[in-house]
Amino acid sequence: MANQNKIIITCAVTGSIHTPSMSPHLPVSAQEIADAAIGAAEAGAAIVHLHARNPADGRPDQSTEAFAPFLKVIKQRSNCVINITTGGAATMSVEERVKPAATFAPEVASLNMGSMNFGLYPMLERFQTFEHDWERPYLEGSRDRIFRNTFGDIEHILRTCAESGTRFEIECYDIGHLYTLAHFVERGLVKAPFFVQSVFGILGGIASHPEDVAHMKRTADRLFGNDYHWSVLGAGRSQLPIATQAIALGGNVRVGLEDSLWIGKGQLARSNAEQVNKVRQIIEGLGASIATPDEARRILQLKGGDKVSF
Amino acid sequence: MANQNKIIITCAVTGSIHTPSMSPHLPVSAQEIADAAIGAAEAGAAIVHLHARNPADGRPDQSTEAFAPFLKVIKQRSNCVINITTGGAATMSVEERVKPAATFAPEVASLNMGSMNFGLYPMLERFQTFEHDWERPYLEGSRDRIFRNTFGDIEHILRTCAESGTRFEIECYDIGHLYTLAHFVERGLVKAPFFVQSVFGILGGIASHPEDVAHMKRTADRLFGNDYHWSVLGAGRSQLPIATQAIALGGNVRVGLEDSLWIGKGQLARSNAEQVNKVRQIIEGLGASIATPDEARRILQLKGGDKVSF
Amino acid sequence: MANQNKIIITCAVTGSIHTPSMSPHLPVSAQEIADAAIGAAEAGAAIVHLHARNPADGRPDQSTEAFAPFLKVIKQRSNCVINITTGGAATMSVEERVKPAATFAPEVASLNMGSMNFGLYPMLERFQTFEHDWERPYLEGSRDRIFRNTFGDIEHILRTCAESGTRFEIECYDIGHLYTLAHFVERGLVKAPFFVQSVFGILGGIASHPEDVAHMKRTADRLFGNDYHWSVLGAGRSQLPIATQAIALGGNVRVGLEDSLWIGKGQLARSNAEQVNKVRQIIEGLGASIATPDEARRILQLKGGDKVSF
Amino acid sequence: MANQNKIIITCAVTGSIHTPSMSPHLPVSAQEIADAAIGAAEAGAAIVHLHARNPADGRPDQSTEAFAPFLKVIKQRSNCVINITTGGAATMSVEERVKPAATFAPEVASLNMGSMNFGLYPMLERFQTFEHDWERPYLEGSRDRIFRNTFGDIEHILRTCAESGTRFEIECYDIGHLYTLAHFVERGLVKAPFFVQSVFGILGGIASHPEDVAHMKRTADRLFGNDYHWSVLGAGRSQLPIATQAIALGGNVRVGLEDSLWIGKGQLARSNAEQVNKVRQIIEGLGASIATPDEARRILQLKGGDKVSF
Ligand SMILES: [Zn+2]
Ligand SMILES: [Zn+2]
Ligand SMILES: [Zn+2]
Ligand SMILES: [Zn+2]
Repeated sequence: MANQNKIIITCAVTGSIHTPSMSPHLPVSAQEIADAAIGAAEAGAAIVHLHARNPADGRPDQSTEAFAPFLKVIKQRSNCVINITTGGAATMSVEERVKPAATFAPEVASLNMGSMNFGLYPMLERFQTFEHDWERPYLEGSRDRIFRNTFGDIEHILRTCAESGTRFEIECYDIGHLYTLAHFVERGLVKAPFFVQSVFGILGGIASHPEDVAHMKRTADRLFGNDYHWSVLGAGRSQLPIATQAIALGGNVRVGLEDSLWIGKGQLARSNAEQVNKVRQIIEGLGASIATPDEARRILQLKGGDKVSF
Repeated sequence: MANQNKIIITCAVTGSIHTPSMSPHLPVSAQEIADAAIGAAEAGAAIVHLHARNPADGRPDQSTEAFAPFLKVIKQRSNCVINITTGGAATMSVEERVKPAATFAPEVASLNMGSMNFGLYPMLERFQTFEHDWERPYLEGSRDRIFRNTFGDIEHILRTCAESGTRFEIECYDIGHLYTLAHFVERGLVKAPFFVQSVFGILGGIASHPEDVAHMKRTADRLFGNDYHWSVLGAGRSQLPIATQAIALGGNVRVGLEDSLWIGKGQLARSNAEQVNKVRQIIEGLGASIATPDEARRILQLKGGDKVSF
Repeated sequence: MANQNKIIITCAVTGSIHTPSMSPHLPVSAQEIADAAIGAAEAGAAIVHLHARNPADGRPDQSTEAFAPFLKVIKQRSNCVINITTGGAATMSVEERVKPAATFAPEVASLNMGSMNFGLYPMLERFQTFEHDWERPYLEGSRDRIFRNTFGDIEHILRTCAESGTRFEIECYDIGHLYTLAHFVERGLVKAPFFVQSVFGILGGIASHPEDVAHMKRTADRLFGNDYHWSVLGAGRSQLPIATQAIALGGNVRVGLEDSLWIGKGQLARSNAEQVNKVRQIIEGLGASIATPDEARRILQLKGGDKVSF
Repeated sequence: MANQNKIIITCAVTGSIHTPSMSPHLPVSAQEIADAAIGAAEAGAAIVHLHARNPADGRPDQSTEAFAPFLKVIKQRSNCVINITTGGAATMSVEERVKPAATFAPEVASLNMGSMNFGLYPMLERFQTFEHDWERPYLEGSRDRIFRNTFGDIEHILRTCAESGTRFEIECYDIGHLYTLAHFVERGLVKAPFFVQSVFGILGGIASHPEDVAHMKRTADRLFGNDYHWSVLGAGRSQLPIATQAIALGGNVRVGLEDSLWIGKGQLARSNAEQVNKVRQIIEGLGASIATPDEARRILQLKGGDKVSF
């Protein structure tokens, strides 16, 4: 892992895993997403990772029209680094998923390092009433849905976004995804420094045991040495313990309602900023400092907030 | 890992990864597959893991007609445990893949614990001339092909085969696959003892570093305690080192031309039996013993070779 | 590791590693030691681990006369669990070291699980002027000094203290010390629940890399299952990162000026309580709670503060 | 770990752990030690690690007179690398222990990286009748004996032997010993390439679990990168499994009656050569090759068999 003296907090404000009926605090409209992102940035997030949703029913929406309104607002009101998902939702085609990042050429876009099962259906035990028609089938459908990211898809996204100088939040849901990244590095399709986001606790990927975190870092260290910056996210209740372990190991962290709706046991987070605050306190309690957006830009060698297409 | 005093050698005689032009020793016809399986059993394999191929061009063939001829012959000429793939090839539908195991009700069927990329195309650098039309596109096509094993698919195969008392060689290509198995165990869909086959070295899955092997075992030990038997296979040139490490850790091993065409550096194995012999020597050199088919039946609690439908 | 819902903070207020010239805040007199212990308890420490020093020059002093004054005061003014060292200083004989614990029969006494080198001399690079004659030779002498804890010594301390119902803070400075503990457990000389204090960062023992912490826990889990409670201490600047990693892994922590004089980079801690506060903030920041002295008594199955001989 | 294409077998022919009544095959007289060493070399050992014994009763004897007779014979009759112990026996003073290596200036001398308990007494359960008076008290005495290797002692041995160009088999019985080596490397007292001999299974040191082996290698890799060559020895029945695991990890191995009297379960090895043969078969079974003495000299950068003082 490359040396950093500041810790980058990424905040993933809404994502596509949770559905609106699960929490009244999940940002849905462009306004809510913009406010959540700006609030997270004010609380200390250097990067905001963004998905869009249909304002009518909260369904994941990967159209450029859905992204445009909040991108502009966030850019105007905050200096934070904007990171646009190419993951979208597992229900979408890859062409659809890459469109917003290709169109808006953000400083960072997410990129998933492999096809996998993505089991959302166990949430049906916890959440049983849904306001919108699409929610239950969306969760149920994850039994047979594959989150598609073939070698060809990855290559396509890499080539498409590289043209506009976008760098990647490289999402690794299992150890094999690190090896897939190494494969693309070897083929010269990804350039250092890599920003590796290790994802723990999704059914279908690696879980969130401390040994899993340790092996993920050990493997990335072996494969990428000083060429990568490491960030982690823990799904659900593992969010904060995973973040804490990563901080103790010198890594960066991602929080936000995309990854967890919670702020404590049985207690919904009222905002993305609340989670950012909590993890920031741990970082500062340890005597470490958080990176500002410009420090994150230097660390990750980003092109700058003025070189985007929105 | 459950205690065993004998080590089970599985031999996977032909599979669907390699194509006929890669080695003249790859069994293709029913006769060749039967001979290879029997030879492996005579050399010390307790279990033979079987795929079928079209005798005309060596293409993977999951029809029951393709399996029937060699199943009968092997059953007649050997006491070894017969294990029928439900993986088939990544090009096939799940319905097609499960047919032979559902029809013939073998003692063991393989079962893959997750959807994943399965990158065969790097072999195109090593192998450049192909006898058959289908070979190059088959390898090339792996860039965009997903080896599909959704939660729904796994449940379907578990339910289908469980009816006839077939047990599973549970193939885990990454750490997340172990957690997927734990998920099905928790749901009561798989019964101990589990026969976990950890697969190392497929592009898309975990690689074959000793730390990967260690973390795989550590995780399985934590999740399954004494409820599982552990076997490993290393793809390509990692076959023997991985087998050796597993033996040193007390595990079982799988060899065979499905997993590696080689017997030494740059040296093609002339038969499956040759690989079985080599790994057997290492086992016996360590003062350990190999399991006979009947010992494997006891260890894995199989229904018996007389309860199959062929 | 046994399940706990509360985290036990131990504070080691003065020890015998540091010398008075290193920090004006190191407690030396009985009054200072009592105040430090009570302050630590008020800040959240459930257990205070105590050494005594000669009030004239701060030299480690293992006489019962040196312990008596502060033991009574602490007992009167605080409910915290008192833990008396049997480590003393590496310059002392084992008979001398065990005397205070044998005499005062505290609820907990420390017990070191092996003989080892204990290199204090590298501190001579940082600290160069000393007020007292004994300080420099004490540090220099660590080049040739062995911290003696033979199997015979350990057995002697176990038998001596067990009579009066004292339990142990079992200090493990390396992986082999865990196996030594397992050896005594097997011989029936130690009873569960074990309170294992893993020590990281002493020259001569294991260092403070996150992988070291992970392997320590992994080994203790394998050897002791649910029969042990785990606590860690990191020497010097590793104090807080090690504590944080342990908290993320579900463990307990030890802080205090015995282990580190620092509160931040280049910044001396002004009190033991300051370190307790800092680690407490991390614990509570994670949504966990600290154990009260009585909760620690229940968790560790201690005899009670009324059953001591002081 | 530095790359090697050949595996170095060291054979430790008699040592000081076992006593003559434990096995009739333990070499005791100079003639027996010479024959054992030459036999081991002929079987494939590139290095022989040597202790001497009193021919009358088999007691460890660190006098130069005891070493001289077999050193000359081995040198004359074999090209193998001669490695003289500086460990001697835990009953001896350091001055006594270093004498033979200082006098004879061998190509390699062993060097232990820390003081520790060294528990031989559990062998009293297995071996109950002894021919010689000294044997039982020698084993019993290990309860209170410390194998002394202070920082000062290590520095003394390093400086004494370095003058004559002797290199070291650096014995590490626990993780902390690796860090002690790193300390001496940092102080410039040891020069690369380091030949690290990790010792597993001595009571007082790290045990012989595969995770212990993995963590030892992982730590050495992190501390020494390509500057070290790794060898392992497993005590007693762990000898062969540990060797096998190390071979699978790319390391070198040590066998011999110093480390284990056994060749199989309950079966005494009739010679050192028998153990060398067994491990050689595993190495060659894996398709690897053993190093000749001259290849070992090149790998470890030894001064040459003609530059010794015997
Ligand atoms: Zn996302
Ligand atoms: Zn197969
Ligand atoms: Zn202490
Ligand atoms: Zn020796």
